[in-house]
Amino acid sequence: MTKGKTFIISGPSGVGKSTVLKALFQGRDDLYFSISATTREPREGEVDGVHYHFMDVAGFQSMINEDAFLEYAEYVGNFYGTPKRFVDEAMEQGKDVILDIEVQGALQVYTKRPDTVRIFIAPPSWDELERRLIGRGTDSPEKINKRLVRAKVEFQTANTYDYFVINDTVEQAVREINAIMLAEHCKPAERMKILSE
Amino acid sequence: MTKGKTFIISGPSGVGKSTVLKALFQGRDDLYFSISATTREPREGEVDGVHYHFMDVAGFQSMINEDAFLEYAEYVGNFYGTPKRFVDEAMEQGKDVILDIEVQGALQVYTKRPDTVRIFIAPPSWDELERRLIGRGTDSPEKINKRLVRAKVEFQTANTYDYFVINDTVEQAVREINAIMLAEHCKPAERMKILSE
Repeated sequence: MTKGKTFIISGPSGVGKSTVLKALFQGRDDLYFSISATTREPREGEVDGVHYHFMDVAGFQSMINEDAFLEYAEYVGNFYGTPKRFVDEAMEQGKDVILDIEVQGALQVYTKRPDTVRIFIAPPSWDELERRLIGRGTDSPEKINKRLVRAKVEFQTANTYDYFVINDTVEQAVREINAIMLAEHCKPAERMKILSE
Repeated sequence: MTKGKTFIISGPSGVGKSTVLKALFQGRDDLYFSISATTREPREGEVDGVHYHFMDVAGFQSMINEDAFLEYAEYVGNFYGTPKRFVDEAMEQGKDVILDIEVQGALQVYTKRPDTVRIFIAPPSWDELERRLIGRGTDSPEKINKRLVRAKVEFQTANTYDYFVINDTVEQAVREINAIMLAEHCKPAERMKILSE
């Protein structure tokens, strides 16, 4: 059995990443979606081990000390991290792993594991991203502008990513992510082993 | 319109490359199959510009002098080459180009154009390659052994290729080649342009 690979998927707020990921995972049990650990309190309806691995700060800290995170960060006073264990277990089972993390976290993972494949989901245009942010109807005009500037900042660092998927339609974005995952399994390092046996 | 890319497809004799290429091109007018130039005489039924671009040695020589070949080689007293012109025209039209060439020719193309993507088609196992060569019923046991050794020699140099496609079934091989081609169009160099406009 071939070992799974880890794929990071990043993208700016409003690009439609959640919708793409939902469509990508439809009916797929050969893919593992990495669940983050967090020190924040569970919200109503959130289930431990499903939405997050909930833990206290002491637990989080000891995981840091044990180098048990692929990446971790602070956000509005709470800590969030990607536990290595579940990622490694899934890969050992031959599953590809999807990490839904931001550019900063991606850099941490990539530094530890350069064989991680990084995919950036971009909007078809900046105007379209603005339209989508307005369309969500959740943010004030000021917040939308902030998100747009942040998207451009992320885009500047994203040129180090391995692939860019333009989310024009969800179907095409999913098709491209699947193509990238399959293509990455055709790399010599993995395939040469089969014929050298 | 996005410019096309060039993909080299190599593979040992008997691996089933022709069958895979035939299936790949089925109903696709967005792909261009590069036709070689040759100084050998046309065989019965061969059409100029379809099977080969037939030319005399003087014509071939002047194309060499004009640097009009992506690669060229001699084989049993005849010359064979890949004209740049048709490849470039197809790419300008947004078509992806497939070059069906051997490991030596691939190295020449790659040296001139490092953005060329090289795909090596490998058998699922050496035993299977032997079975396929025997199954064709065209070669003597001695010739089959020579082909097997040559395949292993090629395989040694093929670790510099970008991708390995294992031709277990034609459907899977075509699926992988298509995935590789789509994934290569998701590389940042090409995609960043769209959002920087």
